[in-house]
Amino acid sequence: MLSFHLSKSQSHLVWNNHLEPAVHVPNHATIEVEVTNASGGQLNETSQSEDVRHLDFSRVNPVTGPIYVDNAEPGDTLVVDILAVDVNDWGWTANIPGFGLLHEMFPHPHLRISHITHNYAELLPGLRIPVKPFVGTIGVALPQDGDHSLVPPRAQGGNMDIRHLVAGSRLYLPVAVKGALLSLGDTHAAQGDGEVAGTAIETDALVTIRVHLEKNLSVTLPQLETPAHAQRRGRAWVTTGIGPDLFEAARQATRHMISLICNRTGLSAVDAYLIASVAADLKISEIVDVPNWVVTMHLEKEILDGGL
Amino acid sequence: MLSFHLSKSQSHLVWNNHLEPAVHVPNHATIEVEVTNASGGQLNETSQSEDVRHLDFSRVNPVTGPIYVDNAEPGDTLVVDILAVDVNDWGWTANIPGFGLLHEMFPHPHLRISHITHNYAELLPGLRIPVKPFVGTIGVALPQDGDHSLVPPRAQGGNMDIRHLVAGSRLYLPVAVKGALLSLGDTHAAQGDGEVAGTAIETDALVTIRVHLEKNLSVTLPQLETPAHAQRRGRAWVTTGIGPDLFEAARQATRHMISLICNRTGLSAVDAYLIASVAADLKISEIVDVPNWVVTMHLEKEILDGGL
Repeated sequence: MLSFHLSKSQSHLVWNNHLEPAVHVPNHATIEVEVTNASGGQLNETSQSEDVRHLDFSRVNPVTGPIYVDNAEPGDTLVVDILAVDVNDWGWTANIPGFGLLHEMFPHPHLRISHITHNYAELLPGLRIPVKPFVGTIGVALPQDGDHSLVPPRAQGGNMDIRHLVAGSRLYLPVAVKGALLSLGDTHAAQGDGEVAGTAIETDALVTIRVHLEKNLSVTLPQLETPAHAQRRGRAWVTTGIGPDLFEAARQATRHMISLICNRTGLSAVDAYLIASVAADLKISEIVDVPNWVVTMHLEKEILDGGL
Repeated sequence: MLSFHLSKSQSHLVWNNHLEPAVHVPNHATIEVEVTNASGGQLNETSQSEDVRHLDFSRVNPVTGPIYVDNAEPGDTLVVDILAVDVNDWGWTANIPGFGLLHEMFPHPHLRISHITHNYAELLPGLRIPVKPFVGTIGVALPQDGDHSLVPPRAQGGNMDIRHLVAGSRLYLPVAVKGALLSLGDTHAAQGDGEVAGTAIETDALVTIRVHLEKNLSVTLPQLETPAHAQRRGRAWVTTGIGPDLFEAARQATRHMISLICNRTGLSAVDAYLIASVAADLKISEIVDVPNWVVTMHLEKEILDGGL
């Protein structure tokens, strides 16, 4: 079992299936991958809200790679075991004007730096978010030639932000080009389902993965196996959005969660929005009781109760 | 603390804010409510798939009530504590032609009767679903006069099918008319987030609630507090749907979950669809990485592994 290491300088800023591989690895290789946080090094522990305004978006969301997996062919499934996600001791969470589920409500830049321990990230003094580090962006090269933005996720994976992709999980990706060309980045110390403000607790990390090929299994979209510790465990506050449009229902549930957090803590709406983004989960409670669907947003009560 | 009992015969089949109350209760009353399963007594333990074809839809989804809460006024919040949900020892799950998230894939009626114990419901021989009984429909009368269907949930609650509304949870409902006129029904022994086939493990139950009024709290949509045991605990299979439309992404994730279940168990697609409906959860993993959102469907692995 060969072991490899990729440094954070071996990164790229677009998906392109003609990128030069950073490394070639055999089947069953273990790879340590250094990841730069989604700002691409533009934010640091002393950054302020004003710095969000000057982010150069051509440099955000870098991914480390691509990793060429020997013998990978289109139609194969690349299986990636996430063995470890070791995050940095600080992370950032921002409201970025024009981005996020409720962008029209929050037109101003806002930044929070969290101190991260093994157990929690302190987003605000005394407000602790359970740390469940995962890989936000992971994918293989697209079948389409040319440059493609790293922002949207696609059938080959990418910026999926599935918070259950923690250490102990296994990811199945559809290989579209020879060598697969796996890249990953955008590591998060914590996030809620939905990532409603558009950012999580964004942090550098060292990710350890093992890859292998399944020649007789075909997936057309990413699939996962996730460990039990990816689940939440506590009592929760739940808000609802009800109506014929899931997107609007999700916005409604999020707005009500922001109100709930503000009412219970006295925090500002934008901080409540960030808390929802890093810790509250959007679920589709029902999608069949025509014509109105229910989206719920769930937040563990302990987070607002001031400790874990 | 006065205690009341409503029998299943004290039921109604539409929301109408002029219905005669089944009972008047004071603030802080405890009420035992008998609930008939969503078939309204039309299906029983020996029913067959063909019987689904003859369901009279004017008789489905009965709710027990309405309960008039003394002193409740429009603008108040009615708080309902779910103290117990004691379900029957059998339940039904059906594919009903024309209903459900993937109705065009499943045009034929299909029925499964589950034997229910304290811990699990046996949907198919050897296939056990963890029992987490909850109240599928609970709501207060609408501000609008006239008859309104019980099927869609609305701002006053109703058929929300939020599976976290188990014993130990607390529901906040916006009172729209004098006396609130609370009704409930559609009890489920188990359900996944989404209830994709349109039915859960539908069962009779005896529901015990306690109600009280909050005069100084105003909610415009239902809110909940849910206990820790409403959460899932196990390793999970996860499928994805990725694209700009959440509804289509939910359909995609559900279709892939059906394929996954079929591939791993050899079961028919329609049985896999029912399993997804009663045990798999739809989550919105991200709703910000423009223009593609990610909906994931999660199923605890143990269910397919044949035991709990």
